[in-house]
Amino acid sequence: MRNVIAVIGGGSCAPEDYARAREVGRLLAEQGYAVLTGGLGGVMEAAHRGAREADGLTIAVLPGSVAKEANPYAEIVILTGMGDARNVIVATSGRAVIAVGGSLGTLSEIALALKHNVPVIGLGSWTLPEHRVTGHGVMVVDTPEKAMHLVDGIITQGSD
Amino acid sequence: MRNVIAVIGGGSCAPEDYARAREVGRLLAEQGYAVLTGGLGGVMEAAHRGAREADGLTIAVLPGSVAKEANPYAEIVILTGMGDARNVIVATSGRAVIAVGGSLGTLSEIALALKHNVPVIGLGSWTLPEHRVTGHGVMVVDTPEKAMHLVDGIITQGSD
Amino acid sequence: MRNVIAVIGGGSCAPEDYARAREVGRLLAEQGYAVLTGGLGGVMEAAHRGAREADGLTIAVLPGSVAKEANPYAEIVILTGMGDARNVIVATSGRAVIAVGGSLGTLSEIALALKHNVPVIGLGSWTLPEHRVTGHGVMVVDTPEKAMHLVDGIITQGSD
Amino acid sequence: MRNVIAVIGGGSCAPEDYARAREVGRLLAEQGYAVLTGGLGGVMEAAHRGAREADGLTIAVLPGSVAKEANPYAEIVILTGMGDARNVIVATSGRAVIAVGGSLGTLSEIALALKHNVPVIGLGSWTLPEHRVTGHGVMVVDTPEKAMHLVDGIITQGSD
Repeated sequence: MRNVIAVIGGGSCAPEDYARAREVGRLLAEQGYAVLTGGLGGVMEAAHRGAREADGLTIAVLPGSVAKEANPYAEIVILTGMGDARNVIVATSGRAVIAVGGSLGTLSEIALALKHNVPVIGLGSWTLPEHRVTGHGVMVVDTPEKAMHLVDGIITQGSD
Repeated sequence: MRNVIAVIGGGSCAPEDYARAREVGRLLAEQGYAVLTGGLGGVMEAAHRGAREADGLTIAVLPGSVAKEANPYAEIVILTGMGDARNVIVATSGRAVIAVGGSLGTLSEIALALKHNVPVIGLGSWTLPEHRVTGHGVMVVDTPEKAMHLVDGIITQGSD
Repeated sequence: MRNVIAVIGGGSCAPEDYARAREVGRLLAEQGYAVLTGGLGGVMEAAHRGAREADGLTIAVLPGSVAKEANPYAEIVILTGMGDARNVIVATSGRAVIAVGGSLGTLSEIALALKHNVPVIGLGSWTLPEHRVTGHGVMVVDTPEKAMHLVDGIITQGSD
Repeated sequence: MRNVIAVIGGGSCAPEDYARAREVGRLLAEQGYAVLTGGLGGVMEAAHRGAREADGLTIAVLPGSVAKEANPYAEIVILTGMGDARNVIVATSGRAVIAVGGSLGTLSEIALALKHNVPVIGLGSWTLPEHRVTGHGVMVVDTPEKAMHLVDGIITQGSD
């Protein structure tokens, strides 16, 4: 089974977030991780783009049922046709979630990931008030490289 | 069509939240609203219990596919069998959402409701940092009565 | 908990199917059953219309996320926003399913209901070849009254 | 974007169906298609096994939320946690569906695929009575090779 990491964030985003998500995608692919996203534009496109630039495998879990809605860097397109109900799939199918920026859809995915004990790493994304979260909250980093270090630690730990 | 209000919160909860959710359910039913929840225990049960005490209609949108998992105050039981993917149904099927306390599942529902422009009223629940939310965030109140005032305003406004 | 019966069939249908579904809805409501459908037009509307004419409770489990898409006889509107993934909810939330006519969507619901051991009664609907079905297939009847007899038997049996 | 073909059928199956599904998987992989299934045993496992034997890419869209439930030949595991609601994903994410044997879950997927205009090829699987299906029904073949010919025709046609 391939190790899959999910990258989440806005379908439209600031250039800075796009650049960071692209770098995240590239680093993940270089380490051999498949990159799963919600399949649309913005951060999702950027992560897929970076991954493809490093010959990685990219998986788009689309809210709609039309493959053309996927960003052009998606290699495997999963058509759910179930709108935001697909967020739970994005949030839980990876060994970890990396959130880059993001708005309310991203927040729903962070919450669902943490609920299912999937580690969440945040790059300029949401943080949750500590007193409301049992266990781990969002692990905050400020560079794609630091996000990668955390991912590697998570995967190594899980393989013990 | 009946006006439906969703009440969300933890499947287990502190006695204080239980009491508040029960009062919320009672007030909603007295005003003629049907009370929709995720159908389990804790805040969900309390809201249904209060609503039934005022002869209200209660709707449980269960994550599982076994009716017996619904709390005993649920009148209409919807079996989704889709786990947390049902959160989007709970979050968007009401004219408003009232959140009482709650943990990560509740947070996912708050995020999804706001994304779909469903007003969210919070009683001791999550708040979202203003700089990350476009439009309305969680409307914070400290009593069930104040929650009801907001609900009435939302329904009246929507009927114009 | 209220006894809920699902009625399934085409979103557009022949006048004969409309008339039969309306009669089914009326008979169900007269016996105190709540009538759950996929919430759209055709057979779904007819069943809700008949149920409302007998003061019954009607529940629409819509594929979309806009309440106005529900037929005008729907009292409780559940917004799933998940397209045909909602078929599993319609197929499994009732104590029995009555299929009136219907095309491919209806067939998917019949299959899902039978898979979950929900009895299916067919009025001019699909039948399944016996050699492919373990256990019960579609119980074929030719009048709404006969469908009602089967429903009453199912509910009585289930309450033993 | 990679061409994905879905293979559907029972989670447990007769040795004959297992052998045919494995051959289908192998042929699909040899032609460069990724093989998507519901991720469990039986026909799903066989199709993934055959595909892996030809170095193909295999995708499991699981009903549950635990990766270990996937068959050992699944390379990419998608955790839906939504039970049979995931059938719509399996039915619609491929350019075509190949059904090998199968019971009620398979029938629901055939119906959903045809509803969404995804061509369905059947190997000892369900057939639908012609008078109830508008447009194409299940294309019946008796060998994996003939199924492959149809798949190639569908993909070529779709690329015009």
